[in-house]
Amino acid sequence: MQRDIFEPEHVQFRESVREFLSRHVSPFQDRWNADGIVDRSVYTEAARYGILGFSVPEEFGGAGVNNDFRYNAVVAEECAYASAHGPAFSLQNDIIAPYLLDLTTEEQRRRWLPPFARGELIAAVAMTEPDAGSDLQGIRTHARPAQDGWILNGAKTFISSGIHADLVIVVARTAPEPDAKASSAFTLLAVERGMPGFDRGRKLDKIGLRSQDTAELTFNDVHVPAANVVGEVGRGFIHLMRNLPMERLSIALNAVASCRAVLDMTLDYVKSRRAFGSPIGSFQANKFELATYETEIDIAQVYVDRCITALNAGTLDATGAAKAKWWTTELQQRVVYGCQQMFGGYGYMTEYPIAQAYLDARIQTVYGGSTQIMKELIGRSLGL
Amino acid sequence: MQRDIFEPEHVQFRESVREFLSRHVSPFQDRWNADGIVDRSVYTEAARYGILGFSVPEEFGGAGVNNDFRYNAVVAEECAYASAHGPAFSLQNDIIAPYLLDLTTEEQRRRWLPPFARGELIAAVAMTEPDAGSDLQGIRTHARPAQDGWILNGAKTFISSGIHADLVIVVARTAPEPDAKASSAFTLLAVERGMPGFDRGRKLDKIGLRSQDTAELTFNDVHVPAANVVGEVGRGFIHLMRNLPMERLSIALNAVASCRAVLDMTLDYVKSRRAFGSPIGSFQANKFELATYETEIDIAQVYVDRCITALNAGTLDATGAAKAKWWTTELQQRVVYGCQQMFGGYGYMTEYPIAQAYLDARIQTVYGGSTQIMKELIGRSLGL
Amino acid sequence: MQRDIFEPEHVQFRESVREFLSRHVSPFQDRWNADGIVDRSVYTEAARYGILGFSVPEEFGGAGVNNDFRYNAVVAEECAYASAHGPAFSLQNDIIAPYLLDLTTEEQRRRWLPPFARGELIAAVAMTEPDAGSDLQGIRTHARPAQDGWILNGAKTFISSGIHADLVIVVARTAPEPDAKASSAFTLLAVERGMPGFDRGRKLDKIGLRSQDTAELTFNDVHVPAANVVGEVGRGFIHLMRNLPMERLSIALNAVASCRAVLDMTLDYVKSRRAFGSPIGSFQANKFELATYETEIDIAQVYVDRCITALNAGTLDATGAAKAKWWTTELQQRVVYGCQQMFGGYGYMTEYPIAQAYLDARIQTVYGGSTQIMKELIGRSLGL
Amino acid sequence: MQRDIFEPEHVQFRESVREFLSRHVSPFQDRWNADGIVDRSVYTEAARYGILGFSVPEEFGGAGVNNDFRYNAVVAEECAYASAHGPAFSLQNDIIAPYLLDLTTEEQRRRWLPPFARGELIAAVAMTEPDAGSDLQGIRTHARPAQDGWILNGAKTFISSGIHADLVIVVARTAPEPDAKASSAFTLLAVERGMPGFDRGRKLDKIGLRSQDTAELTFNDVHVPAANVVGEVGRGFIHLMRNLPMERLSIALNAVASCRAVLDMTLDYVKSRRAFGSPIGSFQANKFELATYETEIDIAQVYVDRCITALNAGTLDATGAAKAKWWTTELQQRVVYGCQQMFGGYGYMTEYPIAQAYLDARIQTVYGGSTQIMKELIGRSLGL
Repeated sequence: MQRDIFEPEHVQFRESVREFLSRHVSPFQDRWNADGIVDRSVYTEAARYGILGFSVPEEFGGAGVNNDFRYNAVVAEECAYASAHGPAFSLQNDIIAPYLLDLTTEEQRRRWLPPFARGELIAAVAMTEPDAGSDLQGIRTHARPAQDGWILNGAKTFISSGIHADLVIVVARTAPEPDAKASSAFTLLAVERGMPGFDRGRKLDKIGLRSQDTAELTFNDVHVPAANVVGEVGRGFIHLMRNLPMERLSIALNAVASCRAVLDMTLDYVKSRRAFGSPIGSFQANKFELATYETEIDIAQVYVDRCITALNAGTLDATGAAKAKWWTTELQQRVVYGCQQMFGGYGYMTEYPIAQAYLDARIQTVYGGSTQIMKELIGRSLGL
Repeated sequence: MQRDIFEPEHVQFRESVREFLSRHVSPFQDRWNADGIVDRSVYTEAARYGILGFSVPEEFGGAGVNNDFRYNAVVAEECAYASAHGPAFSLQNDIIAPYLLDLTTEEQRRRWLPPFARGELIAAVAMTEPDAGSDLQGIRTHARPAQDGWILNGAKTFISSGIHADLVIVVARTAPEPDAKASSAFTLLAVERGMPGFDRGRKLDKIGLRSQDTAELTFNDVHVPAANVVGEVGRGFIHLMRNLPMERLSIALNAVASCRAVLDMTLDYVKSRRAFGSPIGSFQANKFELATYETEIDIAQVYVDRCITALNAGTLDATGAAKAKWWTTELQQRVVYGCQQMFGGYGYMTEYPIAQAYLDARIQTVYGGSTQIMKELIGRSLGL
Repeated sequence: MQRDIFEPEHVQFRESVREFLSRHVSPFQDRWNADGIVDRSVYTEAARYGILGFSVPEEFGGAGVNNDFRYNAVVAEECAYASAHGPAFSLQNDIIAPYLLDLTTEEQRRRWLPPFARGELIAAVAMTEPDAGSDLQGIRTHARPAQDGWILNGAKTFISSGIHADLVIVVARTAPEPDAKASSAFTLLAVERGMPGFDRGRKLDKIGLRSQDTAELTFNDVHVPAANVVGEVGRGFIHLMRNLPMERLSIALNAVASCRAVLDMTLDYVKSRRAFGSPIGSFQANKFELATYETEIDIAQVYVDRCITALNAGTLDATGAAKAKWWTTELQQRVVYGCQQMFGGYGYMTEYPIAQAYLDARIQTVYGGSTQIMKELIGRSLGL
Repeated sequence: MQRDIFEPEHVQFRESVREFLSRHVSPFQDRWNADGIVDRSVYTEAARYGILGFSVPEEFGGAGVNNDFRYNAVVAEECAYASAHGPAFSLQNDIIAPYLLDLTTEEQRRRWLPPFARGELIAAVAMTEPDAGSDLQGIRTHARPAQDGWILNGAKTFISSGIHADLVIVVARTAPEPDAKASSAFTLLAVERGMPGFDRGRKLDKIGLRSQDTAELTFNDVHVPAANVVGEVGRGFIHLMRNLPMERLSIALNAVASCRAVLDMTLDYVKSRRAFGSPIGSFQANKFELATYETEIDIAQVYVDRCITALNAGTLDATGAAKAKWWTTELQQRVVYGCQQMFGGYGYMTEYPIAQAYLDARIQTVYGGSTQIMKELIGRSLGL
């Protein structure tokens, strides 16, 4: 189905993103994969191309794109097509930017937005803990009031961009009673590089997304000044919830684009690879399987495009985003599994892009809210 | 996801269709199911409500709705919500009307359109034969030129509205060579009630859709006048192909609406039915399953809505319609199977609507082009 | 995989069952289906062939087969191959016989076993109630002590052989406190034809298994003499639990045999039906699908055969039977669905055996403990 | 289901294998994984434990186990339980040994069997080529007759133990006509370490099974003496076919044991990991999923056990082995995928055994004959 949501300015932006990726990302991917982290300079370069921080108002050095997630979509999609998982552009644009733009004070905006728009300030959100994945109530990281701020203690894990981050938005329990309701128990605190007591643990060794740095973070009596509270004290949970649809749609967009990339590379392969005297794509079982993927990817694309339109219109609710998130990421598993199978032994060799796609895909159904959590949420919306 | 394709006039039309169904269809369904056929009067009544033949130009007595499949969608959906499968409104509106409107001569239009718009002329398309399902090349019904027309011989089966039909558009082989290519071998001939040699075999006893008459038809030396050729001689295949996307989208619309109706009745049931001290809808396995159906029905709805927009814009191709057709009808099987399971033993009792839904659903992946044929077609569009 | 559990005597018994079915069942099936019930005489005839009551000791007129479920398997399988679902032989042999043999007093055995062995006493078990399916705690049918027996009140539904039954083993609550634990709250009472207050409601109209009578039963102040208590007072739940593995294995055996029958008829069809110039079984998608069914049916057969061996050895536990039950009956749904699809429109016509197989299969995942209940039980065995 | 195929001697052997693995394999696995290859000494040590070469007759230094695949099963299973994929014991015992035992001349047996039984001669089979996976007809490696032997040219890939192998059984085309039928076109030639022109390409970098060396091999005018022909000239295809059932059963055994190991570690995890106040294994969706895996693993175990019995009895045909192979390895994908999901983010960290299990599993549906090839073969056995 022909996509119908983009205007000429998005098409032009897409060209620009492609050029950037081919010049400043693709040539370095192998090294970044080996290093397990990207060069910081890719962020400043991306900012120069307008790929990072475009939603920052012009007065703070951004492009002032206002509530148009189609730009975010273009970045997410092109990165997926190019397997450019290392630079966390979508994290910065889709997840971090809303915090910095919508929850900050004028003082914080002056402090953080200009370097963010220049790609010099890389940020992360730290929610997950070793013993608390999907369940916020399990969070133990806490902050107690102190002179002109808070004293933060605790540990976080699986933090994307945890190594590169200059600023980490930490979800901390600030209600003294341990059984306080989520809606008033948490506060978001911005911990900055160099604050005493803030340590980054080891970089985690992941199955895939190897050039994307993921880390454990620890906080030992970190003094966080009151000026670094993001949003309101005690409303951390509300702030998190508000941004989740965007984060989940972002993952869904990446999933659909990854599916498309995988299907394309597989179609190329099955048309040229021959067995028993014919291209293997001509075997009906393969053909039907690929037709199934083509159908489901198309259906998924139409759905996420509808979600983008809804997000821009302010009508994308948590349920809609949850549907998009789990369905597209589970689709991605089926597509990548089935396509990889068609590559035979080559699909098991890490040097082949299909093998990388298999490894990169697996986390998609887990992070940003697992498939199970999404279904729980949708079930609740049905009154169950 | 909020649907966004309808205008106020469609909403109003939907109200009208609902009223019609509740007055003129629902009260008679049990009898029609027992009879295996609906009363003819339902068609004339539907025409009075503007539910039938609305695409017929005003000069011929219709409402002159021009290329707006949203009206067709409203009828298909409301019939599905009401389990009103007996009256073949979608067959007449979505499949027959395009033949009568687009392929006919002025003389034919004057002859057929007014009674069609009044619900007095019921029509059918006869393509399938006992030994030729999806494969047109297997068609043996043939017509040889005769004085001022054609002499038609052969047999057709699985003909929807075959008993009620006053006019049957028959696909006949008119090329003398048996191996002629499909693109020039067939002609559409309109056989009318009462023509000598035209017989209706028995009404077929189907698993479901029991009030929808389905028949075998036989043609023994039926003389079809040249004035009853529909479209061009030798271009029957082309004519058929042209109308297939609409037919398949029509089935897809019905499938999605049926899914929605089944999910709704199931949600009602699982919220009230209790076991082990709780409503059975609160059990997580049920909840997740229903959340899965809710997700996939929503995704399907967005896709068929996109197809409707594309059809109206003239951009829905055979591949898009094929995707919609197979995916939604297979979804319907999963939904109806899983929901029925939640009804326990009641789901197996014919008096329960969920049981009827199960029986009615099964043919959807078969007629109008089976899932296998759809995948073949999509596979070809991928160059496989 | 060659089956390896049968001895020559079972092979001979199978021949006998086949002969019986071809003479005394197959010729009458259409009429029985139309009637919604079989002739009672089929039971006495079956008894003459030794197909019914073979586990009754010789002194009471049976064949004295002792703990050899392979005979039961032969009957279940041959009935499935012949689609002979109407006569409830497996119900009598696999489910009723153990109650009558193992839980009865000498007096009851003298009273009930001889007519049972002659096929003159048809029995049923009545557990399910309109508001209590899988959950015994929901059972409301109750009996209060009375002079020399019990006064029974309540209603049961979905009772197989409910119309024909001369003796119904009713699960009744006999503990006065409503919250008594299942293990001591229930008693089995044998209600006999003609007891005042015992009424059979209407025969239920099912999707399939149409010649098998299924009924609602009501009990209004039925006086059940103490001599009709089956097993011990207050141990009804324990008695039920003990017989469940056998009942579930019986359903599994039927499922596997039905799968085999459906696959066989489908293989015949796809080898002869042609499309696009070839038998449709030669299309790779069909071929792979049939290979999948062949594999899974073989695997299922080996598993239920292992269960039979274990049952005979006294080592089949509830978990093993639950696994066999849910997996084979779900397999049956996949097989019958996929095979039916290959028959195209014919699969939707009730006159075709494949259509009947589809209709008959659907209840298998529901009765005898639904798939969900089976998984719950297996989950518990894993310590979850 | 209690397994019933083992005798006390197998139980004792299993103990011995376990001791060996815990002493001589487990402590070295991390290093071997990093090295991408195991130490050769593990083979000689294994031989001392009787784990390698037990089917070699005593006169050649083996244990003389004759046609009892239960010993092979024990090794395959224990290696899978211990994730000991590096040492290719099953390759040597299940695949190589039959060639060396059944197809060799007395002279070859004297030359090769003693070092093989001592773990000093490691062997490999080289069939797959860069352009010929499942399709033997695509094999281009060829040998032309030369003085007292053959001149071999060509390249092989994906050769398990290709680096360690001292002796490689190469499938070479020896029929001069390029279109010779498989049944007479190929010959097996034993290429030995050090033969001029025999080169090992790079060790391939695989997604998983990282300690198992896999290599490309090239043959440039390698002179293979006539004394190194394995089996008969022109009967290579027949020889290969004969050993396939054993190879496939071996993979199936490994798959089932791997599933069991993964399920066990997952059950441990979900019982201790808590969220929302309960162990995550108590959530019904997880419980049902684990119950599903438990069921299917049990069913798979019973089936492969039946295959072992059949293999020992000489009745396991190619179809039975093909069923076992594809079904168990596809099951393994479902089990490992679903279990990994329950570990949340930890499942994506390479340090966790579940992550390793995910990576190791993926090749199982590919090598030894892909799922697609298995279905093709089974389909043919059905006459399709």
